[in-house]
Order: sequence, then C-alpha cells, then structure tokens
Amino acid sequence: MAEAKVLVVMGSDSDFPVMEGCFKLLKKFGIPFDAKVCSAHRTPELAASIASSAKADGYSVIIAAAGLAAHLAGVIAAHTVLPVIGVPCKGGALHGVDALYAVVQMPTGIPVATVAIDGGSNAAILAAQMLALSDEALSSKLVEYKAGLAASVADRDARLQEKIANLGE
Amino acid sequence: MAEAKVLVVMGSDSDFPVMEGCFKLLKKFGIPFDAKVCSAHRTPELAASIASSAKADGYSVIIAAAGLAAHLAGVIAAHTVLPVIGVPCKGGALHGVDALYAVVQMPTGIPVATVAIDGGSNAAILAAQMLALSDEALSSKLVEYKAGLAASVADRDARLQEKIANLGE
Amino acid sequence: MAEAKVLVVMGSDSDFPVMEGCFKLLKKFGIPFDAKVCSAHRTPELAASIASSAKADGYSVIIAAAGLAAHLAGVIAAHTVLPVIGVPCKGGALHGVDALYAVVQMPTGIPVATVAIDGGSNAAILAAQMLALSDEALSSKLVEYKAGLAASVADRDARLQEKIANLGE
Amino acid sequence: MAEAKVLVVMGSDSDFPVMEGCFKLLKKFGIPFDAKVCSAHRTPELAASIASSAKADGYSVIIAAAGLAAHLAGVIAAHTVLPVIGVPCKGGALHGVDALYAVVQMPTGIPVATVAIDGGSNAAILAAQMLALSDEALSSKLVEYKAGLAASVADRDARLQEKIANLGE
Amino acid sequence: MAEAKVLVVMGSDSDFPVMEGCFKLLKKFGIPFDAKVCSAHRTPELAASIASSAKADGYSVIIAAAGLAAHLAGVIAAHTVLPVIGVPCKGGALHGVDALYAVVQMPTGIPVATVAIDGGSNAAILAAQMLALSDEALSSKLVEYKAGLAASVADRDARLQEKIANLGE
Amino acid sequence: MAEAKVLVVMGSDSDFPVMEGCFKLLKKFGIPFDAKVCSAHRTPELAASIASSAKADGYSVIIAAAGLAAHLAGVIAAHTVLPVIGVPCKGGALHGVDALYAVVQMPTGIPVATVAIDGGSNAAILAAQMLALSDEALSSKLVEYKAGLAASVADRDARLQEKIANLGE
Amino acid sequence: MAEAKVLVVMGSDSDFPVMEGCFKLLKKFGIPFDAKVCSAHRTPELAASIASSAKADGYSVIIAAAGLAAHLAGVIAAHTVLPVIGVPCKGGALHGVDALYAVVQMPTGIPVATVAIDGGSNAAILAAQMLALSDEALSSKLVEYKAGLAASVADRDARLQEKIANLGE
Amino acid sequence: MAEAKVLVVMGSDSDFPVMEGCFKLLKKFGIPFDAKVCSAHRTPELAASIASSAKADGYSVIIAAAGLAAHLAGVIAAHTVLPVIGVPCKGGALHGVDALYAVVQMPTGIPVATVAIDGGSNAAILAAQMLALSDEALSSKLVEYKAGLAASVADRDARLQEKIANLGE
Repeated sequence: MAEAKVLVVMGSDSDFPVMEGCFKLLKKFGIPFDAKVCSAHRTPELAASIASSAKADGYSVIIAAAGLAAHLAGVIAAHTVLPVIGVPCKGGALHGVDALYAVVQMPTGIPVATVAIDGGSNAAILAAQMLALSDEALSSKLVEYKAGLAASVADRDARLQEKIANLGE
Repeated sequence: MAEAKVLVVMGSDSDFPVMEGCFKLLKKFGIPFDAKVCSAHRTPELAASIASSAKADGYSVIIAAAGLAAHLAGVIAAHTVLPVIGVPCKGGALHGVDALYAVVQMPTGIPVATVAIDGGSNAAILAAQMLALSDEALSSKLVEYKAGLAASVADRDARLQEKIANLGE
Repeated sequence: MAEAKVLVVMGSDSDFPVMEGCFKLLKKFGIPFDAKVCSAHRTPELAASIASSAKADGYSVIIAAAGLAAHLAGVIAAHTVLPVIGVPCKGGALHGVDALYAVVQMPTGIPVATVAIDGGSNAAILAAQMLALSDEALSSKLVEYKAGLAASVADRDARLQEKIANLGE
Repeated sequence: MAEAKVLVVMGSDSDFPVMEGCFKLLKKFGIPFDAKVCSAHRTPELAASIASSAKADGYSVIIAAAGLAAHLAGVIAAHTVLPVIGVPCKGGALHGVDALYAVVQMPTGIPVATVAIDGGSNAAILAAQMLALSDEALSSKLVEYKAGLAASVADRDARLQEKIANLGE
Repeated sequence: MAEAKVLVVMGSDSDFPVMEGCFKLLKKFGIPFDAKVCSAHRTPELAASIASSAKADGYSVIIAAAGLAAHLAGVIAAHTVLPVIGVPCKGGALHGVDALYAVVQMPTGIPVATVAIDGGSNAAILAAQMLALSDEALSSKLVEYKAGLAASVADRDARLQEKIANLGE
Repeated sequence: MAEAKVLVVMGSDSDFPVMEGCFKLLKKFGIPFDAKVCSAHRTPELAASIASSAKADGYSVIIAAAGLAAHLAGVIAAHTVLPVIGVPCKGGALHGVDALYAVVQMPTGIPVATVAIDGGSNAAILAAQMLALSDEALSSKLVEYKAGLAASVADRDARLQEKIANLGE
Repeated sequence: MAEAKVLVVMGSDSDFPVMEGCFKLLKKFGIPFDAKVCSAHRTPELAASIASSAKADGYSVIIAAAGLAAHLAGVIAAHTVLPVIGVPCKGGALHGVDALYAVVQMPTGIPVATVAIDGGSNAAILAAQMLALSDEALSSKLVEYKAGLAASVADRDARLQEKIANLGE
Repeated sequence: MAEAKVLVVMGSDSDFPVMEGCFKLLKKFGIPFDAKVCSAHRTPELAASIASSAKADGYSVIIAAAGLAAHLAGVIAAHTVLPVIGVPCKGGALHGVDALYAVVQMPTGIPVATVAIDGGSNAAILAAQMLALSDEALSSKLVEYKAGLAASVADRDARLQEKIANLGE
C-alpha cells in the first residue's frame, strides 16, 4: 500500500530557493514527496491532470508555490478534494502582495491553506501537521521539532547577551 | 460562415451589474455575443473546455469577469490564443485590489488585457476595437461613439455652469 | 474513543456572522465541533490552555477567527502541533488587511493555514479536507459538495441568461 | 497594400530593458513594428499627432510603455479607436503601483488593455493575438509559441529534479 | 487689462460636490474664475487647446480635478507653463489612491501641485496664495482667512467642553 | 500640589466619537484630565504653547488625536519631554492609513506612542499604565479592569453558544 | 528692494541628493534662494520662526522636503500665507508612501502643493511657475526649458532606434 | 529596593541592529535594562511568564521588537498592566507593514505603544519619558538630549551650506 505522500508543484524551478526549506523539512520529517514544475498558465492540462489524479496517485497533501498572479494553488484546488497549501512567492514589482492576494482570497467552496510570502518551510510543517492527524510518530516528530525551535531561542538569547556586552558607547 | 463573436464569461451572475454596461455596448455596436457563467474554481473543466474550443466555436475575443482571487481570465487565457480581456470585480474586503492583481500580473507568455476594476463597459469597447481591426463599419461606429463621448462633455459643462450659477454663499 | 473533532475559537461573538457559514458547513459534513470565544489578548491563559490541551481533548483541527491585530491563530498555533486554520476578519479601518497580514505572515516554524478575509466557510471546508485524509466517507461528502458547487453554476448561468434577455436598451 | 503594423511608444529610451522582450517577440512573430520615444508630458503634441494618425499611417495596434504617473497610454487612447496596450513600468519609489493604477483605471469610454508591471513581452503577445484575428498564419505561430512555453516547463522540471537530488541535509 | 484669473477644469460635472468648496472660496477671496468640464480622454483636443491658450486668455493658475486614472492635471500641465493645481477625486473602487498617484507622481519637468484627495477647497487657497504673491490685498484676505480658521478652533473647543460635560458614565 | 493629570488634545471636536471611550475610561480610572481642541495647522502657536507648558501646568501624559495628515501628535511631541500618545483618526478617503503613518513614522529622537486607528479607548489605558508606574492604586484598577475584560469573554462565549444552538440549517 | 526669493527647508542634509536637482534648476532659472536644515520635530521653534518671518524676509515661495512622518511642509504652511511646496522623501521602510500621505493629505485651510516622492526638481519648476506669474522673463525661461524637454525626446528617440537596430535574436 | 528597569524582549537576536540604538540610548540615559530573546510563537510559555512576572521582577516598562506577524508585543501586553512599547521590524517581503499592523492595531483593552518601523531608538526614548514621570533627573536628561537634537540641526545645516556651495552646474 502506498505511504501517505506530499506532492509539491511549483510554477518554475526558479522558485527553488523559496522551496528549499520545504524540501529539507519534508526529508527531515521522513515524509515521502514528489516535486514537479507545473504552470497554471503554460501547462494548464498538466496542472488539471496532476491535481485530478493526485488522490488516486497516493498523494494526501499538495503544496503549490507560485508568484505574480499566482493561480497555481487555486487551479490545483479546483480539481481535488485534497487539502492544498499555497505558497505565494515574492518575485516581481509588487514583492509578493499580488501572489498573496491571488492565493489566499479564494471564493467560498475552494479553500487554499495559505502560508506567508516565501513561506516554503512552513508549508512543509503544515503538511506534516495534516499527515500527523493519522500518524502519531509524525506527530511526535513535530513535538520534537517544536521543542528544537524553543531550544534555539536560548542560543539566540546567548548571542544577544554577547552583542549587548560588546555594545560600544 | 460564422460572424465574429464575443464570448463573455463571468464567475457568477452576481457580477451582472458590473457587466450590464458591457452587454449594452456590445448590443449597441451590433456585436453578437454569448455569455456564460463559468467558474475557474467550481467548474474548471467547463472553463478549460469553453476556452479550448472558443476559436473553433467562432469566437474572436473572450471577456472574463471575476472578483477576489480572480483566476478566471488567466485560466481562460491559458487555453486559447484568442485575446482575453479581464475585468477585475470589486466585491470583497479588498475592494477589487485582489482581483486587479490576480488579473493583470500574469507571467510572461500568457497576457490578459486588463481593464479597470468593475470596468465592464470598457471591456466591450476594447473587444470592439479588436474586432474593428478587420471590420471598417465597426471602426466607424467606434469613431461615432467617441464623438458622442466628446459631445456629452458639452452637456456636462452646461450642467456645471448651472450649478455654479446657483452656488450659495 | 472520541471522534475526530474541530475546535473553533473566535476573538468575539461579534464575529459570528463571519463564522456562521463555517458552523453550517461543519454540521452539513457531520463533523462534531465545539466553539469557544477566547481572546489572545483578554484571556491569554485560556487561549494557551485550550490550545495546549486540544489534542488531548480529542480535537484534530483548530479554526481561529479574529480581526485587527489578529494574534489568536498564531497564539493557538504556538501551543499545539495540530493544524491551525486562521480566518482574518474584516472589522476596523483597514478592512481586514491588518488581520490578514497578522494571520498569514507567521515566522518559520509555526504555520497558520490562512483562508480569505471573512472566509469562515472555507475554513470549514479546509478542516474537512484535513479530516478526510483518514475518513473516506467524509472525502466522499467533499466530492459531493464540490459537485454541488459545479451544479450551482448551471443555476447561476440560467439566471444570467434571463437577465441578459431582459436587458434594456 | 500596407501590412498590419504595431506602433510601440515609450516615455523614455531608459525603459528599453522593459521593452526588449517586446521587440524580440514582435520580430519572432514576424510582425512589422515601429518604435518611438514620445512623452505625454514633454511632447504632448507629438503624442496626440502620432495617435491621431496611427490608423491612417497603417498601424493596427499601439503599445505604450511608461512609468510613474503613466499617462502615455491613456493619452494615446484618447486620440484613436485602435486598441492601445499599456505597459506600466516599475521605476520610482512606488515600484510601479503608481504606473499600474494610472494605466489601468481608465474611465468608461477609453479603455487601455493593461498588462503586468514591466510586462513588455506580454504586450507583444497580446498585440499578436489581436492581429491574429485576421491572420491565420500568425495565429499558428501563437499556437506554436504556446507549445514552446509548455515544452519549456519540462526543461524546468528536469532542472528542479536535479536540484532536489543535490539537496543537502 | 485682464485681471488675474483662475481656470478650473473638471473631468465631469459629477465632481461638483468635491469642487463646491473651491468655487465658494474663490468667490470669497474675490478671485475671478471660469470653470469648464473637460476630459483628458473624451475631449483631448479641448484639454490641449484650453491649456495652450490659458496664459494668453488671461488665466494665471489652472486647477484640474479628476478621478480614477486622473490624467487631466498632467495633460493640462504638459501644455502650459502656468502653475497647475491637481485635485485627485475619490470616486471608484480604489477610493482615490489611483487618482492621487496619477496626479502627484509626475515625471521631472512637468510638476502638478497636488492637494489632498477631494481637497477642492485647498486648491482654491493654494491658487489664492500664488496670486497673492503680486496682490497684497489678496494676501491680506488670506491672513484674515487664516485668522478665521484659528478662531473657529475656539468654537470647536467650546463644543468639545460641552460634549465632555454631558458625557455619560 | 497638582495631581498627575492627562491632557487630551484633538484636531477637531468632530473627532469626539473616536475619543468618547477615552474620556469615559479616564473618568472610570479616576484620572483628572483636561481636553482641548487644538490644531497643528490652524492654531500652531496654541499647539506649541500648550505642549511647551504642559509639564509646568501639571500634566504628565498628553494624548493627541487627529486625522488625515495627522501632525498634531508629532508637533506636540516636538515641544515636550512628556510622553505623547497619538490616536490616528479614520476620517477621509484613505480610512486612516494616512493618519497612522503620519503619527507612527516619527524620526529618531521624537517618539509618539501610537495606538490603533480610532483607538481612543486604548490611549486612555496606555496613559493609565504610564501613570500607574508611580500610583499603585491606579495599577490595581488596571488589574481589575483587565480582569473585567477577561470576564466579559465568558459573557461573549455564552452568547456564542446560544447563537450556535439556534443555527438554522 | 529685495528680489523674489525661494526658501528651501530640509529635514536633514541627508536629503541633499533628493534636492540637488532642485538647487540646480533654481540656479539655472536665476532664482535667488536660501536653503536651511530645519526639523519640524527637532527644531520646532526654528521652523515656526522661519515660516512666520518668511514673507517679511523677502521670500515668496517655500519648498519643504522631508521623509517618514514628514510634518515639515505642513508645519511651515501653518505659519505663513506664502505658497508652500512639499517634497516627500523616500527614506525608510515605507519608501516614501508615509511621507507622501503626511505631506499631501492636509486638512481644509492649510494646503501644501505636493510634488512626487523625491521630486525635488519639480519643486523648483513649480516655484518658478509661481514666480513667473509676475516675471515675464522667468516665464520665457520656463517656455525655453519646456522646449528643451521636448528636444531631449528626440535624442532619446535616436538612442532607442540604435538600441533596436542592435537588438539580438 | 530594585531601581526602575526596562525589559527589552526581541523575537530574535537577528533584530539586534534594529535595537542597537535602543540599547545605546538606555545606557546613555543611565536606565538599567535587561534584554531577552523570546518568541511569541516558539517560546510562548516563556513570553507569558516573562510578562506575567515583569512587574514583580522590578520592571516598569517593556519594549518588544518583532517582525512579520509580530505578535510579541501584543502577547506581552496581554499578560501585564505595565506599559508595553512595540517596535515593528522591517524584515520580510512586506517591508514591515505587516509588523506595523500586527503591533499597532490592538483591540480595545490591551494597548501597545507603537513606534516607527525599525524605530528601536525611539522605543528607548519613549521608555525614558515614561520613567521620567517620577524621576526628575531623568527628565532633565531628556531635556538635554532634546537640546542636543536641536544643536545637531545646526551641524547638518553647515554641511548643507557646504554642499550647496560646491554644487556643480
């Protein structure tokens, strides 16, 4: 039986730096994933077919990242009942406000779970949280990850104290 | 042989007031048109099939009106080489800025000819201008329409003079 | 054993109209839910304790709705590894842009799955999509709901044709 | 008989980088064009005369690119019934939002077909789509171009897979 | 010899309420003025000819009020060396931000003296300030007007004290 | 000896509804206050003299409320070392974003303690918090007020449960 | 008798690059000017006294440049009936939108003639236009300057043609 | 007895450059302070406990700096009646507008005294102003600091005169 998997679709490979944290966290959490470049505008049939068959193909959650008039997440969501996480990317003159609005302002009936502009890492965590609803081991990893975040604050605090100690006049 | 026609697609019939001026101008210019409610998110296959077959169905220009995360025009444009005119609609908390960005900020390769927020009438005129490239009679109607706009300014001026004459202290 | 449940927290009962669609859809999908008024600023301990014990209390997904400097969803997310869906509410001078930014722009590590401003209904659907990952019957209801959305487009189209037929000069 | 031609007007030659893609695509599609620097504010008579005589001069479509309070496209549109495509340019403190609003928010009667901020390439494609309404060979070139866009997605996907394969820990 | 005069041009008589305060103040200051409806887009030749001959026609200052993609002030300024005062009007989905940007963000060489959105009254005062540079009597009227503004603050303060005295629990 | 007092200055008595909550809370906390209408632009000398003598006049905290280009708080702050709390008011086309930026974006050296747009009540609470630094009885009143806020959440929750119980289909 | 003069006040000498074009154009037009650093917040008495005595000191027009919560122009305008030209400067996180709103959104009674963000050069031209109302020689210089602007367009056009001729494939 | 102290909390040590001026000014004013890294989202319990015990720990004023969905100041304010000063930090795609809204738009009952984006220095001054309400020596230091600001304007003016003297043609 196929394991729960995440499908990551991106409008272009040029958004890779935005999504690098996403891929790393999915690996860290041990969540199998596939990634595909797929454009709502350049390859609309591909977007439709990927989304339409995603559930049958064994995917549980889809993450879609795009910039500008970022229709990809919405187009994917239109073709599936799987939860779709949208990552608005910052590229272009409007610095991602266009992408944010295009991803989050979905009409009633077709939600996209939107994370911050360039928030690729958080998309991975959100996907993990969804999968953890039926995977207690993954849930434990999330608890552990959260503990790590808290621990890192102590490190940051140590660095802050040092900077303040060295504060010039 | 089919006459050049315009196809108007709208995300919902609730946008009718925005598009009423569009329909009236198309009638005034004698341009045959069809209108369909079609949602990029609720009926994505319909949107794809309408757009894919639009040229074969005898349409020359497509006008797409939608609000919020207004993906309809972009989705239509993805499936055709016909010119697509996008009308961002004002509904929702962001007053149409979301729709404007979602319609106009299309990536390279797939343009949408965007008009003003709630600019349904201008979508009709723009469609007429495109069709008039090969229809001199329509071009003359546009010249006449433009003359009418100029003439209306004289009427407005008369009203202004009257208001100023009646200006209180 | 407790059934999978959704917890809805709201900054104030005055946001009820925004969330009415959420409650109706949860009922329609047969998803048991509890709703609580809880403020990140007025009752921070309550917010922390609700979130901290949510998983143990049998909840699977938390929906948090708030306006203005809408910290509620983020505060909830800080205390749980359950997926948290944020609904930015429109109230106030900035029409919900403040709430949208405060909900969606979460730092790395603590995502909030953000839906549209005043998008209460979509929060319910998104929650259902998450729960349906391990509930095939619920997944079927979502497919059926989606079909209903598509069907409603036909009704809207009929109304549009009628309006156009009655179009004055 | 004069061939259908495109006229490109720009507020300044400093916008050339924005429009380079436009010129290249017009050449690629084999569409004859002329380009002129012409300012709505510095050379208003020139703008008026260019626009007024554009149709008689054999042009079919006008593309106008400008930044800041970008009045050029609107001023051109005021003097012609040819379709006018507006390209808002990004220069200045507001990053092109000023130009976008000044180009797209035209009043009823005088539309400008607006493309994305710095969307010079899309202006060329939109012009080609308009000309293709009566030029089946050009229409075929657009179909071919669209196919090329789709094909490039496969290349991008290959690069993405490589990047993911090389993903560090 | 013709007395110094102000010319007020408006995109439409529908902006009269915005400009009523302007007309009243010009009358109060005893400044002769003419007002004309004139559209940069519907009557571009009229706008050009009004502006080009304004100085010869005896006008010293031009006030231009328009909304949306408010090109009128900039178009007027392009044709004259007289100072042009621009009043961005609020109409439309963007509440006058579009008009503000289109009026104020003029390129180097062609300034428009911009006042607040819907700031018709301030346009009159600014015109009076310009004319008062060579009209000491008018300058005295401005000093008197300013004294009146200060005096009105005392009245407002009296009303405030009354409201506070009546403040409920 | 004069008791610690708050001075409330407002650009106009028309902002009274915004500040009514401020006055009521100051009364509720038993904090003596004076209120004055005073405009940075219409009565600049008054603004300067009020601010310059505020400390000698026995005031400890100044609250300044204004809209549009809301310079009042900044002008007051320029003339005193007392803490100045700024309340940006919503009036005008920009809904208070102009006032917010004009109040909060003060240059280094002259801070204004800014509260939310139309946040008059919070200005009173903030003033009370400052005065409570040396007034333990007032501090206890703030603790009690905060407890009341928390208690009101229970009431709101009760209303929410009732609304949900009455939820139609 | 003192010649008509312009007074330029700036919040800081760090805004010199924004105002360099202003100084150069004033020199080019042969307009005597003084420049002073003066802060509405750091030296409010200086700002008040400069503005109050500006007319008696022989100045005709005041130009005020500032960034962030740019109160300088408004504060100056509060103390004089001379026309005040405001230049919003771009510095800071908001890129000058804060300064633009703080300069242009003045309340009724106290206008500031606002130019574009960082529009120092246009402030000089606007000042010259005001002074030219009673100085025909200056008016002729403005006509000549405007002719120079138009002529520069021809140079720009030549450069554009060259760039297009060298356009790669 | 513990001296009045300021507590500075920051979401991350990466915001140190924003807060360096704050620490320097607190030292300059001789105000004892502690600084801690503490995240509303990563260490919510720490944030709650720090805030809850701040008064008992001898702190009088809390300064909280954070970026993006900057909940830290609001979360701190929820747990204390001490005055809380919020510093919105600029990081991220929205340049601090998100942080500004998340800090300043607090609901009635729980104010945050907000300073400018990246306004760390002003947070220190505002804290000093609050503490000076019961510390006349500190008040004198603020008067002296303000005098220094005014004096620095003279230096800036000298630099400006030099730049103008060296102005090229």
